[in-house]
Amino acid sequence: LTSKLPHVGTTIFTRMSQLAAETGALNLSQGFPDFDGPQALRDAVGRHIAAGHNQYAAMTGLPALREQVAAKIARCYGRSVSADTEVTITPGATQAIFCAIQALIHPGDEVIVFDPSYDSYEPSVELAGGRCVHVPLALPDFAIDWQRLQDALSPCTRLIILNSPHNPSGALIARAELDRLAALIRERDIYLISDEVYEHLVFDGVAHASVLAHEELYQRAFVVSSFGKTYHVTGWKTGYVVAPPALTAELRKVHQYVSFCGVTPLQWALAEFMSEHPEHVEELPAFYQSKRDLFCDLLANSRFRFRRTSGTYFQLVDYSAIRPDLDDVAMAEWLTREHGVAAIPVSVFYRQPPAELRLVRFCFAKREDTLRQAAEKLCAV
Amino acid sequence: LTSKLPHVGTTIFTRMSQLAAETGALNLSQGFPDFDGPQALRDAVGRHIAAGHNQYAAMTGLPALREQVAAKIARCYGRSVSADTEVTITPGATQAIFCAIQALIHPGDEVIVFDPSYDSYEPSVELAGGRCVHVPLALPDFAIDWQRLQDALSPCTRLIILNSPHNPSGALIARAELDRLAALIRERDIYLISDEVYEHLVFDGVAHASVLAHEELYQRAFVVSSFGKTYHVTGWKTGYVVAPPALTAELRKVHQYVSFCGVTPLQWALAEFMSEHPEHVEELPAFYQSKRDLFCDLLANSRFRFRRTSGTYFQLVDYSAIRPDLDDVAMAEWLTREHGVAAIPVSVFYRQPPAELRLVRFCFAKREDTLRQAAEKLCAV
Ligand SMILES: CSCCC(=O)C(=O)O
Ligand SMILES: CSCCC(=O)C(=O)O
Repeated sequence: LTSKLPHVGTTIFTRMSQLAAETGALNLSQGFPDFDGPQALRDAVGRHIAAGHNQYAAMTGLPALREQVAAKIARCYGRSVSADTEVTITPGATQAIFCAIQALIHPGDEVIVFDPSYDSYEPSVELAGGRCVHVPLALPDFAIDWQRLQDALSPCTRLIILNSPHNPSGALIARAELDRLAALIRERDIYLISDEVYEHLVFDGVAHASVLAHEELYQRAFVVSSFGKTYHVTGWKTGYVVAPPALTAELRKVHQYVSFCGVTPLQWALAEFMSEHPEHVEELPAFYQSKRDLFCDLLANSRFRFRRTSGTYFQLVDYSAIRPDLDDVAMAEWLTREHGVAAIPVSVFYRQPPAELRLVRFCFAKREDTLRQAAEKLCAV
Repeated sequence: LTSKLPHVGTTIFTRMSQLAAETGALNLSQGFPDFDGPQALRDAVGRHIAAGHNQYAAMTGLPALREQVAAKIARCYGRSVSADTEVTITPGATQAIFCAIQALIHPGDEVIVFDPSYDSYEPSVELAGGRCVHVPLALPDFAIDWQRLQDALSPCTRLIILNSPHNPSGALIARAELDRLAALIRERDIYLISDEVYEHLVFDGVAHASVLAHEELYQRAFVVSSFGKTYHVTGWKTGYVVAPPALTAELRKVHQYVSFCGVTPLQWALAEFMSEHPEHVEELPAFYQSKRDLFCDLLANSRFRFRRTSGTYFQLVDYSAIRPDLDDVAMAEWLTREHGVAAIPVSVFYRQPPAELRLVRFCFAKREDTLRQAAEKLCAV
């Protein structure tokens, strides 16, 4: 059997979560909360299962949930999208991204990916017969390097994958950068996937610059988000894509054969909760900012160096004052095995990691006691 | 935007279910029960959600569920498979098939598909850059036509997709046919996907000839099944693939980027129910056979002609004594609009439907009162 993905191993998230489980380390590696979603949301699932909502949902997603998504977008970003022709529910945001890539990329097409980037983008492009062109973000801010981006464009460029708030760095794309991007691709046949799964995890009073709020870019964009991240239920694997009707039509052609539809009772529960608790998304920045600040305040006493993350539930830390001799993969393992806190190395998000990279990522979507215990261990390093 | 799937429209299942909803017809088209899964199974979900099983499952599937699948396979087919290296849980059987195709098919590869066949196979092959070679099953029995199969093989043939019990006809592949298939591909570099989602819906005391029970074929097979069909919860979108370790490794590389994992609380509930109710699968043939027989007994008074289906929850009927002037797409619409019973036309499962085809498919996974009402309407046609 000739492998379709010869370079691919098991994702770093699985490997570090396994190592954490084996060693009994606190798992601040893979991004998921160690607390639960809202009680009302969880209770709703049992009710909808009891009410008999257990057969196939509509292929495009439960209409009530698509309408809630459209209502939220109107509230948060001032755009009116059609629940019918622009919103599609998928079994997770990863799958939304996969389907958008499959719908867009023909063999030979090039896709711009900013490094560091989420690990699913490149294999998804490869499976579609495309090729990723990696454009490193400028350190230390993880900002777009416009010269490098411009140099990377070619007549084959068909897609740019944006991710803001950015995993793993938490960096945010500014509205002015979206304008600049729009100008850059204006005369070209280039589409966007905007991975905005952390759209509601933006701190310090800054507003998330969504592609949904950018008229020109939206016209050629698939905007992806995740109920799992917003409602603390990553294991429910439910996400969505918003795109103009013509793009949505192509996405759905793929989606209907990749999975056909998402899970029915979860979609009912999410629709109900969203309609009854629109304040949830408004409260989310403060909720996660206080976790970030708790963790960072405690870590101020450690030998790790960092700047507080602007978004996501991830905090990068520089360990070069501690073990400059270790690369970040070795450092993440060492922290897990020797100090009982699992982390994610940042180099795995790069095609070609900078040699001087000495960063690991911690997930702070954790209960206060977990964060305190982790910080205590990390201060002892 | 150049479409990746230019010939694809909305699936017949969506279209007929929509038409049924619009017209108020009894929906015997898309295959799903109008009754619910076992109470204990449904109750278990709420419990596991309350217990905090709401974050990412293992990428390969919840270990307890993989073990239950392995135990069931040992019981039903006498094969011992490794839960660790041979069983993978996926968000639905459609996605299992999609991922297996992506893992196997390189551009230029040919895939043998027996017509009539499930509508997802061909677009999935096309997205992988492969080409389907359609081999019609021999009418009226929907049996493999060995001469046509042999003629269809080429040096590019890399995959054969089997489906038994067969949707839409209910036909079963016999053990002797598996032997013959093994002999045919023995010296060739050809793999199998065996779509066995209706494995437990086999009637009249016949045993399902699973590829899992066929040593030689299993060594090059992905065997796909569906919890949704077996436990009456199609909207839970949870399925699995069983394959030898080397094939499983390649499948998981794709799966981890298509969806990463399935839904956690549903996997817990299914694992618990399977361990406490192993009798469920043993009782399933009788449960569905009595529905088939009720429906067929009532339909005996109609002008439809049919032979009782051997498996699946679908019954084909020949309507040539009623409206020979209508093709089956027109007939399915006419039955829905004029007689209040929605059906699926069989021609949509073909690349090139036989001109004389006068068959529509009814789903009998319905409550007794639904089946009685439907039969009454159909007897009036
Ligand atoms: C699907 S596992 C990865 C979760 C995640 O997004 C991350 O840890 O970066
Ligand atoms: C995923 S919708 C199709 C359900 C089904 O398998 C059928 O009706 O044939």
